[in-house]
Amino acid sequence: MKIQKLTFLSYILLLLFSCTENDKLTSKSQPYTSNDHPRLILTKQGVENIQSQLGKVPVFDNTLAQVQSEVDAEIEKGIRVPIPKDMAGGYTHVQHKINYMILQKSGLLYQILDEEKYAKYVKDVLFAYAELYPDLPLHPQTRSYARGKLFWQCLNDSNWLVYVSQAYDCIYNYLSSDERKVLEEDLFIPFANHLSIHSPQFFNRVHNHSTWGNVAVGMIGLVMDNEELIDRALYGLKVDNIPVDQKDNDGGLIKVEGQKAGYIANLDEPFSPDGYYTEGPYYQRYAMYPFMIFATALENCKPDLKIFEHKDSVLLKAVYALLNLSTTNGEFFPLNDAQKGMSYFSRELVSSVNIAYYYGAKDASLLSIAKKQNIVQLDQTGLAVAVALRDGQEEPFQKKSIELSDGSKGDQGGIGILRNKKLDDEFSLVMKYSAQGLSHGHYDKLSFSLYHNENEVMQDYGLARFVNIEQKNGGGYLKENKSWAKQTIAHNTVIQDETSHFDGKYKFGSKHHSEKYIFNSVDPQFQIVSAKEQNAYPGTQLHRTMVLIEDDIMNCPFVLDIMRVNSSSTHQYDFPYYYRGQIIAANFDYTIPNKLESLGKSKGYQHLWNEGFGTPNGGSSQLTWLSNNNFYSLTTVTDKGDQLIFTRIGANDPEFNLRKDPGFIIRKQNVKDAIFVSTIESHGTYSPVTELAKNGYPFVKQLVILNNDDQYTAIEILNNDNSRSIFILSNEDNSENKSHILKIENDSYQWVGAYYYKNL
Amino acid sequence: MKIQKLTFLSYILLLLFSCTENDKLTSKSQPYTSNDHPRLILTKQGVENIQSQLGKVPVFDNTLAQVQSEVDAEIEKGIRVPIPKDMAGGYTHVQHKINYMILQKSGLLYQILDEEKYAKYVKDVLFAYAELYPDLPLHPQTRSYARGKLFWQCLNDSNWLVYVSQAYDCIYNYLSSDERKVLEEDLFIPFANHLSIHSPQFFNRVHNHSTWGNVAVGMIGLVMDNEELIDRALYGLKVDNIPVDQKDNDGGLIKVEGQKAGYIANLDEPFSPDGYYTEGPYYQRYAMYPFMIFATALENCKPDLKIFEHKDSVLLKAVYALLNLSTTNGEFFPLNDAQKGMSYFSRELVSSVNIAYYYGAKDASLLSIAKKQNIVQLDQTGLAVAVALRDGQEEPFQKKSIELSDGSKGDQGGIGILRNKKLDDEFSLVMKYSAQGLSHGHYDKLSFSLYHNENEVMQDYGLARFVNIEQKNGGGYLKENKSWAKQTIAHNTVIQDETSHFDGKYKFGSKHHSEKYIFNSVDPQFQIVSAKEQNAYPGTQLHRTMVLIEDDIMNCPFVLDIMRVNSSSTHQYDFPYYYRGQIIAANFDYTIPNKLESLGKSKGYQHLWNEGFGTPNGGSSQLTWLSNNNFYSLTTVTDKGDQLIFTRIGANDPEFNLRKDPGFIIRKQNVKDAIFVSTIESHGTYSPVTELAKNGYPFVKQLVILNNDDQYTAIEILNNDNSRSIFILSNEDNSENKSHILKIENDSYQWVGAYYYKNL
Repeated sequence: MKIQKLTFLSYILLLLFSCTENDKLTSKSQPYTSNDHPRLILTKQGVENIQSQLGKVPVFDNTLAQVQSEVDAEIEKGIRVPIPKDMAGGYTHVQHKINYMILQKSGLLYQILDEEKYAKYVKDVLFAYAELYPDLPLHPQTRSYARGKLFWQCLNDSNWLVYVSQAYDCIYNYLSSDERKVLEEDLFIPFANHLSIHSPQFFNRVHNHSTWGNVAVGMIGLVMDNEELIDRALYGLKVDNIPVDQKDNDGGLIKVEGQKAGYIANLDEPFSPDGYYTEGPYYQRYAMYPFMIFATALENCKPDLKIFEHKDSVLLKAVYALLNLSTTNGEFFPLNDAQKGMSYFSRELVSSVNIAYYYGAKDASLLSIAKKQNIVQLDQTGLAVAVALRDGQEEPFQKKSIELSDGSKGDQGGIGILRNKKLDDEFSLVMKYSAQGLSHGHYDKLSFSLYHNENEVMQDYGLARFVNIEQKNGGGYLKENKSWAKQTIAHNTVIQDETSHFDGKYKFGSKHHSEKYIFNSVDPQFQIVSAKEQNAYPGTQLHRTMVLIEDDIMNCPFVLDIMRVNSSSTHQYDFPYYYRGQIIAANFDYTIPNKLESLGKSKGYQHLWNEGFGTPNGGSSQLTWLSNNNFYSLTTVTDKGDQLIFTRIGANDPEFNLRKDPGFIIRKQNVKDAIFVSTIESHGTYSPVTELAKNGYPFVKQLVILNNDDQYTAIEILNNDNSRSIFILSNEDNSENKSHILKIENDSYQWVGAYYYKNL
Repeated sequence: MKIQKLTFLSYILLLLFSCTENDKLTSKSQPYTSNDHPRLILTKQGVENIQSQLGKVPVFDNTLAQVQSEVDAEIEKGIRVPIPKDMAGGYTHVQHKINYMILQKSGLLYQILDEEKYAKYVKDVLFAYAELYPDLPLHPQTRSYARGKLFWQCLNDSNWLVYVSQAYDCIYNYLSSDERKVLEEDLFIPFANHLSIHSPQFFNRVHNHSTWGNVAVGMIGLVMDNEELIDRALYGLKVDNIPVDQKDNDGGLIKVEGQKAGYIANLDEPFSPDGYYTEGPYYQRYAMYPFMIFATALENCKPDLKIFEHKDSVLLKAVYALLNLSTTNGEFFPLNDAQKGMSYFSRELVSSVNIAYYYGAKDASLLSIAKKQNIVQLDQTGLAVAVALRDGQEEPFQKKSIELSDGSKGDQGGIGILRNKKLDDEFSLVMKYSAQGLSHGHYDKLSFSLYHNENEVMQDYGLARFVNIEQKNGGGYLKENKSWAKQTIAHNTVIQDETSHFDGKYKFGSKHHSEKYIFNSVDPQFQIVSAKEQNAYPGTQLHRTMVLIEDDIMNCPFVLDIMRVNSSSTHQYDFPYYYRGQIIAANFDYTIPNKLESLGKSKGYQHLWNEGFGTPNGGSSQLTWLSNNNFYSLTTVTDKGDQLIFTRIGANDPEFNLRKDPGFIIRKQNVKDAIFVSTIESHGTYSPVTELAKNGYPFVKQLVILNNDDQYTAIEILNNDNSRSIFILSNEDNSENKSHILKIENDSYQWVGAYYYKNL
């Protein structure tokens, strides 16, 4: 009753204030029809459904109450639309960011609660922007390759428009057509044009930046029924005149000959058929919001496009890919440029999970993620999730061992994730054998990281940046991102002659990708991933195989790690493991220096202190450390000539931008071929409360290379209880059906498939 | 019915197996009376009460089920009483430790569940020990000043006997007198004698070691009604012949002329009237188990002693003191030698809280701690707690700002704890102005640490040891404990001329204590602690005042820290702050070295890398860092000649025994007098999920010393919003009633009491 009354009131108000109802903006392709709004994300039908359920759906109601209290507090503070000045983290930046967030929420509140104050607030703020915008020059901060007007870069201006389009849609019918005319002519159309026509280097690319730009233009286009903007958003600018060698701030090339642009191209190109986004999960998360929200808008306004079915439903697959690319507690694996701590609790994932549930197959396992998130999107998708949660429909989301291919066709390597979960202990191994990952890619072919629940056992450093912390270079990338974080030595993989893969050059790296060799997680007790890299160092072939083995006599699964290096010439090979925690014991002799010097001069080595220098006794070298009250050990085959180097990150770091984390490097010098064979175990626990150390010693005693030639690599694992096992890998034939026979001394091994493993 | 039947059965068995019922051991003062057992901790009445409540008291029932499953699993493994060989953390050490734990629990299970298998297990294991013990030499590890037989030190043998006495008490009536005779003559009496008569240097001291020894001897004495042992336990050996200069492994002197020994002396001497144990909370926790458990046994067997009322109920006060000496999540402040992570979840505190509840005033606030512990002692004290919890009687335990005096008479300084809690943010400041703390004391007069909830803002390093981790020096103290952890530079206090307080010498340090000057926490928005130290450096007086101020315009309370140094000669003064986390910004110029060198050669300085060197611009120097997603800033008054040094722990650490934690030192050179004035704030937060940095800049802008002479110190705090406040301290008169007038330039300040604070 109340609702109908208010709607009727709105209609009267509309009549009073919108005498020029039939006026058209020149760029409009269709006349306004007042009944069409909201239609972008929240729909009229959605509003009705929500209103009928208010007070009956706990998660939705709680989210609504939170949002209302947040918006009310902001309205209370008054309107603040400052003249743009600051970098990220600074006042004007933060305020404009708060504004777009609050505007979008206020629009939703107006629709859901029918309280005019929320519409009025949106209107007043939008008019303040319409007042400000026409005279705005480019943002005074000149650092970006594509400067915005409200923010230092077009990217943030795009964020603004993606959110504000939704606010505008929600109050569209609250405004008179005169009012809309002012907003559209003074604000939205020039805003959209700045992001596109006037910033082609930003708009006309395959990149997460462009996705935001495309979607911003597309969203406002859909609200205004502006087909020109919609077309521009979907398919890019016809002409862009971008110079062939122009680069963005991250050093990425902007123009790729023959590549399409626009939203559809950004959907086709960087997503693999498995839903993996080539930049990595951190940027995938960032891009998911515009991808999913625009898809929703298109589904609502242009259902014929069937956007959620595009490329075999790649958008829905992308949501699952992202959820699988996270640790036990939902933090994304920091592949490529990625700030640690970002997780599926982010607003982008709340939105994506809600949308994927609603527009996908109503998968009950998504509900368990939504339950942890404990907030929903305030529209029909969030309502559906909250209703299903209320009705107890959720099922566990089982993170699986999974391979995610990279490349638009899925033929450019990928990411292999091996998981083993037993009671409260989940181990997740992430191996990277993907393509470069565009301008946010790191030079770390065949690198890996290992997690014990949410804790890093072997870390990927992530990026060198403090996003939105103004004191740290305005919240932007730090120079150590290039000098350290992107370099190969910052990763758990092999480095030849102290130079990074592809010499750290994007133009080489972006042309190549690693090749998957094996991925098999069928047997949960023996899971394997293996890949080769031919191009990181011309003339040198890298082949890494990682196995996650669960052996009943051990407390936890262990990792067997084999890196074969074959080269046509002699080199030095460094193989770092960035363990976390405190060293407990080593079984080899080492010395520590009185003064710390950096390990090298460039390629990231200048950022490593050399904290200690060990020489193996031959055989297996072992290092045990304690981290989060767990004992871990690395056991690695070493020759007498090898060097074992204790390092710590942080040299030549004049602004204390780096974390002072430890590492351990196995170095082999003056060899053509090399093989690094190691196990990593979590073998025991310590309690500072009971002060009991349980199983403080590694279970693996020794690793022996029984065979290593072009055809086969055979490793024996000898344990402390004298149990033994053997692993054999076929190095050249990964077929599942091939029969193999290998004779080692007096023993003969026979098997079918690419590898063999047995407890002896 | 069942119980009576079993008791009757036991009686029959007793008759069958104990024909020599009236045999007496020569050392017995009273005849056996079979009905007396159990009587030590668990009592007959207790057993009856427990049995009547079984299945009705969740926490008790759950604990019982856990213990039963643990004991069953151990019984399943079979009896293992290996010949002693290993250091702490090694197999034989761990196994004997498991044995005494399980024996005690098995004895309880026998009493509570009336299942003979538990009695039989205890009996069988005890006979295995009785077989082994008579021929045992001293433990082969020779490191201890008082070697045990089962373990490397008498201390652990005492642990064994304290627990095993309880097991013996529980199966006393299950055994024949012949069997008891064997156990007592071959095991218990020689065991008690080894700990006392044969190890006077261990037994006849005031020290936590001796407490364990006293209690071990006393407990077995009570079970056996052996008055000689009981007397020895309570009052020590009459003659000990300990050489005057003998030291223990920690460098502590053993003999103190005129000092008494035994349990009563250990109760009288190291506890202050407030229940603070002079060694610090970590060792207090360790000693609480024998203190409380023996008190319980005495209360049960010798109620006339009224042990819980001794020294104005100091044992009960000690439990409250300990609970107050913990962080938000229950971890003890690591004063003196202390391993971090030890908390009120330890078994010692479960026991202490249960006993304090039962034998104290049935304080409902103790129940809230017991609820968090979620296990109870399996006796009448634990039952009472569990019943009260079941009945919902718990009330919150409010940790208060509190001063705990040190010294047996409470006249040797103390520990001041200031707390401020607001919603989810609790700040706890701990200032130390106590006595030396016996051999576990650190040389850190007037040092402090600061916590934000359970997280360290300014840390006390704690000890350099990995308790029970065998690879680290057999789990014992590391040499870095002396060379680093005990030294003054390892703490947040002033260091003169790069030497530790009392030159780091126990014989000087143990003669002195700091003097409390002010402690006032009446106003929760303005809490203050202030103390003076005259003896740490002869000729130099230190006076530190710390104020925890809650100002409505700030997000969190801040700390004002004033250290006055006055000397008769010129010195260098170093003032370190061991912050945790990542540096975000500094407002002064600094350079970093290409190579790291240690800051000094000795007194702990050899363990500090010099990571950077700054020079203040004059005025206030500021450092901002990020830790646990909170922004913190230090603002400190600096002169142009001061040096600001960035350090990191870990130099000259050949076995990686130290944590590589950062520090920041303010250095003043060639001055007689100095004043260090700083504020420490928690002003903002960062979320890696929303990527929003809120209030990343310090609120305090500048600190100005308006006045600093013998009589008054006046500090102005100027904030970023231009609000100001002034703090004035009377340096020589701490009386609460004294009127003061101070004129500073044109302003006149008038107040009553030792200090003045006002927002201007």
